[in-house]
Amino acid sequence: MENFVLENPTKIIFGRHTIKSLGAEAAALGRKAILVYGRGSIKKNGIYNDTNDSLRAAGLAVVEHGGVKSNPALGFVREGIELARRHNVDMVIAVGGGSVIDTAKAISAGAVVEHDVWKFFSGKKGVTSPLPLGCVLTIAASGSEMNGGMVITNEEKGLKLGAGNKKLCPRFAILDPGATFSVPPDYTAYGAVDAISHILEFYFTCQGENTGVQDRFMEGLVINLMEACDISLLEPHNYPARANLMWCATMALNGWVSAGLGWVGFPMHMIEHSMSAIYDVPHGAGLSAVIPAWMRWQIGRNPAKLAQFGRRVFAIAATDDVEAAGQGIERLKSWFVKINSPTSFVGLDIPRTAIPALAANSQTQAKIWRLREYDQAVVSEILGLIP
Amino acid sequence: MENFVLENPTKIIFGRHTIKSLGAEAAALGRKAILVYGRGSIKKNGIYNDTNDSLRAAGLAVVEHGGVKSNPALGFVREGIELARRHNVDMVIAVGGGSVIDTAKAISAGAVVEHDVWKFFSGKKGVTSPLPLGCVLTIAASGSEMNGGMVITNEEKGLKLGAGNKKLCPRFAILDPGATFSVPPDYTAYGAVDAISHILEFYFTCQGENTGVQDRFMEGLVINLMEACDISLLEPHNYPARANLMWCATMALNGWVSAGLGWVGFPMHMIEHSMSAIYDVPHGAGLSAVIPAWMRWQIGRNPAKLAQFGRRVFAIAATDDVEAAGQGIERLKSWFVKINSPTSFVGLDIPRTAIPALAANSQTQAKIWRLREYDQAVVSEILGLIP
Repeated sequence: MENFVLENPTKIIFGRHTIKSLGAEAAALGRKAILVYGRGSIKKNGIYNDTNDSLRAAGLAVVEHGGVKSNPALGFVREGIELARRHNVDMVIAVGGGSVIDTAKAISAGAVVEHDVWKFFSGKKGVTSPLPLGCVLTIAASGSEMNGGMVITNEEKGLKLGAGNKKLCPRFAILDPGATFSVPPDYTAYGAVDAISHILEFYFTCQGENTGVQDRFMEGLVINLMEACDISLLEPHNYPARANLMWCATMALNGWVSAGLGWVGFPMHMIEHSMSAIYDVPHGAGLSAVIPAWMRWQIGRNPAKLAQFGRRVFAIAATDDVEAAGQGIERLKSWFVKINSPTSFVGLDIPRTAIPALAANSQTQAKIWRLREYDQAVVSEILGLIP
Repeated sequence: MENFVLENPTKIIFGRHTIKSLGAEAAALGRKAILVYGRGSIKKNGIYNDTNDSLRAAGLAVVEHGGVKSNPALGFVREGIELARRHNVDMVIAVGGGSVIDTAKAISAGAVVEHDVWKFFSGKKGVTSPLPLGCVLTIAASGSEMNGGMVITNEEKGLKLGAGNKKLCPRFAILDPGATFSVPPDYTAYGAVDAISHILEFYFTCQGENTGVQDRFMEGLVINLMEACDISLLEPHNYPARANLMWCATMALNGWVSAGLGWVGFPMHMIEHSMSAIYDVPHGAGLSAVIPAWMRWQIGRNPAKLAQFGRRVFAIAATDDVEAAGQGIERLKSWFVKINSPTSFVGLDIPRTAIPALAANSQTQAKIWRLREYDQAVVSEILGLIP
């Protein structure tokens, strides 16, 4: 167990029909909100009306900024910042998934500073006093609803970079599993893969020793994420399954499982970010291709931990660590196949010839994230293990 | 998964040599502290000096209120409230275990109101604006360092009652596992039992369905608590074991495992509180006698959950639920015996003839905690299962 400081101020309001509490929660933050949302799904499923009704009933003025796309774009963030300034809003409300919440975080941080918002991502500036932020989550995936991280794609530079600060933790997050009933099967699966990937990054890359407590916590989450995803795909309106998927995805990246792990890297995310920066593939789709390749690359480096994963998560009986590790990776990959999340370049519609460009793209991130081991040759080697 | 609201503002500062941050953390809360501590162990192990040095170096004035005993007494709380008022302190600092922190919470709540502090426990008054509270934890057990609960014994009335309010969550909690190296074997064991009991109360009494996420979280904590306690008893200065014990005990009762469980009861605590109210036994010691009896009483009522516990925590292979449940209870009881925590009336030095008085004493709590099923006859029946 390594030293840590843990402080997560986000108030979670979880459960059925909790969206109606949005107005009251938001009214505690200010009087005028910029409402950030995606490309229309919330208008089809009624959540747009519910959130607007609740905000207006609480007497709040609302400026709308809809149209966030997945792999959210810097240009859209900059437009939001302009809008927030012009209307002098005093809070940001996000209604959507990780892309929407990350966009909202970038607007909340960028609206109050003179410099361009990209400087937070290039590491040249730190977040100081962002506008208060609240969110209504509509997809179980990123965990952004209960942490201070954000990932934005700079379209001009072809870079997808992350930044974070605990001041960006939403003041409140409304998690109504019913809001995810209409998430289509592909994005339900990608969301589960994303949440699992967060756990696996912690589980396999942590440099601290004696992580028995965190290990069992993480193994339990992975098992539950897979079970809940399976049921959600068969029965999209199954409340308990959607609820478990949602809560597990939040816990995967809210600081609880990682407390005490010491230094952790996010190499799988780094590689995937290059994929989605250049080819705009969905984040979870890219991850399900990268994860088994990265894990296979790790077999010689960390067989005991990989074997523990296989034995505890998939009840693999093999006593040899390398054998148990290999079987565990295959079981996880088979599960990705089962839920129709891509595990190959063909599945991602990316040509294998893109490997050098992807590896080159990853190097800006490798520098910022201090993943020194991951030079172009290593990233190419890992990408080469994707079928 | 049931609806829940989760908001835990406590800042955790965990790890080696973290006590030196006390002054800086406390200085953010005010200028003058009442320092609450126990009966001298912190003077022997150096923590008293370390905390005092840190507070004074940060320029804080300190009024001392040492002498808290286990099963902390209302009289001592009242004296602390008088002292806090007389010196016009603006914060409370607790250095100790659950008894000390609970005493500090009661002082922080009571110092700012006109009425007697016991009214918080008898349910006649609610906590409104307590003095800010910070703590340095010296024993892994109660979880009080990261929640808003407190339990105090009214010596005159012979009642041990709890009360809670999220405003009583410590603003910060310093968790240095090294501070627990000198905890003697008996209290190390009782602390582990206490933490396990919190989990078992949630695990077995929750009324919500579909608790798969929380179940695995809790099973992992129980396994880790047993492992870490075993090692801590063999090697009291084993840092990783003391660290795991400490962090698991905090997570057992900070709201994380219980989020989504719906209504839960604390019947084992209720019965134990009557024991320690009348006979002043250590809380964990009473619990290790009550837990197996209560679980055995539950076999006919909840065999599936008891069987799941036995299978997942003790790898019991029995396919019949009642059989697996019974074996799980025996394994847990054997572990209590192994760590020298009492499992019988003789071990507690309480005569069996006390059963009617204990059952009668429990009824005040049963009313406050809404454990209607637990009338005197039922409590007597459960107590009768203790050998």
